[in-house]
Amino acid sequence: MKLIQLYAALKSDLQAIEDALAQSVASDLPLLNDSALHLLKAGGKRLRPVFVLLAGKFGTYSLEQLKRVAVPLELIHMASLVHDDVIDDADTRRGQPTVKAKWDNRIAMFTGDYLHGKSLMVATELAHPRIHQILSGAIVQMCIGEMEQIRDFFNVEQSVRNYLLRIRRKTALLIAISCQLGALAAGVPERQANILYRYGYNVGMLFQITDDLLDLCGTEKAIGKPPGSDLRQGNITLPVLYALQDERDRAPLLAEIARIREADGEADSAAAVRVVRSSSGIRRAEQLAERYVAKALRVLEELPAIPARKNLADIARFVAQRSY
Amino acid sequence: MKLIQLYAALKSDLQAIEDALAQSVASDLPLLNDSALHLLKAGGKRLRPVFVLLAGKFGTYSLEQLKRVAVPLELIHMASLVHDDVIDDADTRRGQPTVKAKWDNRIAMFTGDYLHGKSLMVATELAHPRIHQILSGAIVQMCIGEMEQIRDFFNVEQSVRNYLLRIRRKTALLIAISCQLGALAAGVPERQANILYRYGYNVGMLFQITDDLLDLCGTEKAIGKPPGSDLRQGNITLPVLYALQDERDRAPLLAEIARIREADGEADSAAAVRVVRSSSGIRRAEQLAERYVAKALRVLEELPAIPARKNLADIARFVAQRSY
Repeated sequence: MKLIQLYAALKSDLQAIEDALAQSVASDLPLLNDSALHLLKAGGKRLRPVFVLLAGKFGTYSLEQLKRVAVPLELIHMASLVHDDVIDDADTRRGQPTVKAKWDNRIAMFTGDYLHGKSLMVATELAHPRIHQILSGAIVQMCIGEMEQIRDFFNVEQSVRNYLLRIRRKTALLIAISCQLGALAAGVPERQANILYRYGYNVGMLFQITDDLLDLCGTEKAIGKPPGSDLRQGNITLPVLYALQDERDRAPLLAEIARIREADGEADSAAAVRVVRSSSGIRRAEQLAERYVAKALRVLEELPAIPARKNLADIARFVAQRSY
Repeated sequence: MKLIQLYAALKSDLQAIEDALAQSVASDLPLLNDSALHLLKAGGKRLRPVFVLLAGKFGTYSLEQLKRVAVPLELIHMASLVHDDVIDDADTRRGQPTVKAKWDNRIAMFTGDYLHGKSLMVATELAHPRIHQILSGAIVQMCIGEMEQIRDFFNVEQSVRNYLLRIRRKTALLIAISCQLGALAAGVPERQANILYRYGYNVGMLFQITDDLLDLCGTEKAIGKPPGSDLRQGNITLPVLYALQDERDRAPLLAEIARIREADGEADSAAAVRVVRSSSGIRRAEQLAERYVAKALRVLEELPAIPARKNLADIARFVAQRSY
């Protein structure tokens, strides 16, 4: 099944989640309505709700219950994007002006806070304390991940382990708990919900590594921004860390990164990108990504062979193949 | 009983909450530890924990249970301060450098997010979904209050009702739910918890109006910052709104506020403060404050006459008498 067919099959349930999302951010404050709706309309793949719905198929599927975890998860994701844009000083996302560009950093900050609060409010409509606990824990871990990223900007001495811990918190965790909470909201036993968590974790790691590869190897047209944006911001990703381990590439790459750092946002990262592209860093990062796909697919085998299991496998393969 | 005696009587329980607060913000990320502990050490009156403990006396008093609402409430309060400092561009608070001054706005933003997440995490140790719901609802309302404040900066046409709605969200609500949640965590029935909520709401309104009066009438020594800081930022408070209703004072005050606005943070608000001080605005704001004390005291009469009731009455009177 192609991804587009999967979305078509889930269409009416995803639309119900979309409506619930719009309803959840509505307030009587026009400024807040505008900024939140602006974010909502900017869209996105609604990947987290898709995982919730598919995980729910392993239990007693109730859209009413599943909505109350899908909406919070997407709201947390949106909150992280809007706060991320403040950090990255990003003016556009998915081709639309960001909240911080359209309004300002203060509005972006409180829009994010509001979305965090709303996410838990929606979740507390389910009298399921364990779900509240997992969601609030995820907000905490994601903040730590964001702070780790700030700490590690331009840190060329960080280890690969360091990078993996950071993307685990920043990206993989929310995808992992999307699978877990979809299962729990459908009454799936904890043990099976944990298997779904592990699947989601591996797909999440894969997703971020692929994203980091795309930023280096994609064309501007494919990724919607100039390649090398991560490096320009000081975000040292996996292919770069691997390239730095290569004796031949280390010195020129260090020199380029130092130059970018000194230019304080005004530098071009094209030369650094060229070094990384021609290094072994790309291949090694791809190999690690492949290991995460394999792990995700292996974990799925522990689950009953219902159609949703096949869909989850397809998504893992699709994420792995995002082309650049 | 004087306030200092009340704190002395609650000392060991407040110390336990202090320890739990320190433990709750600990993480393995030094940067985050530093910023959160810095905030924690800056202290404050721990007013919200005091309300929790006193409200708990109306039910089955268990410090273990009460801690799990007192800590989240204080964390939400701290999160609002750290995000507030970003908005106000404040470099010091309570004589200490703010997180945004000591680190930067990005760190302040994620420290606040982290504290929000942690607050709910601690609360979810109590399997009491209603408490989780009230806390997350409060975060949402406080954000709306913050955004309303941004919207209303320099808005000289706003109504008194507008001001009251804003401080209700920004300040009174968290004090109200401190009383309510202390009661709920001690198994007090909803009806009585709601009476405590109403007491807290009136004290909270009183607290903010007194604070706003202090900013205009206090000495720099007493309030730890130059008087008129609110006006300098564009924050139009109750005494100013009342002064604007006075035909004699309206024109000169409008001219001064326009001048402050045009100077974009570089102006002195001393002349505007003088107009407000000599207007009827101070007296009228004091009268409204007195009505909130009276209401708080009247609400308390609906509760059983235990010593904690007397303590709560003393606090209301103390808040009303903060001198300037």
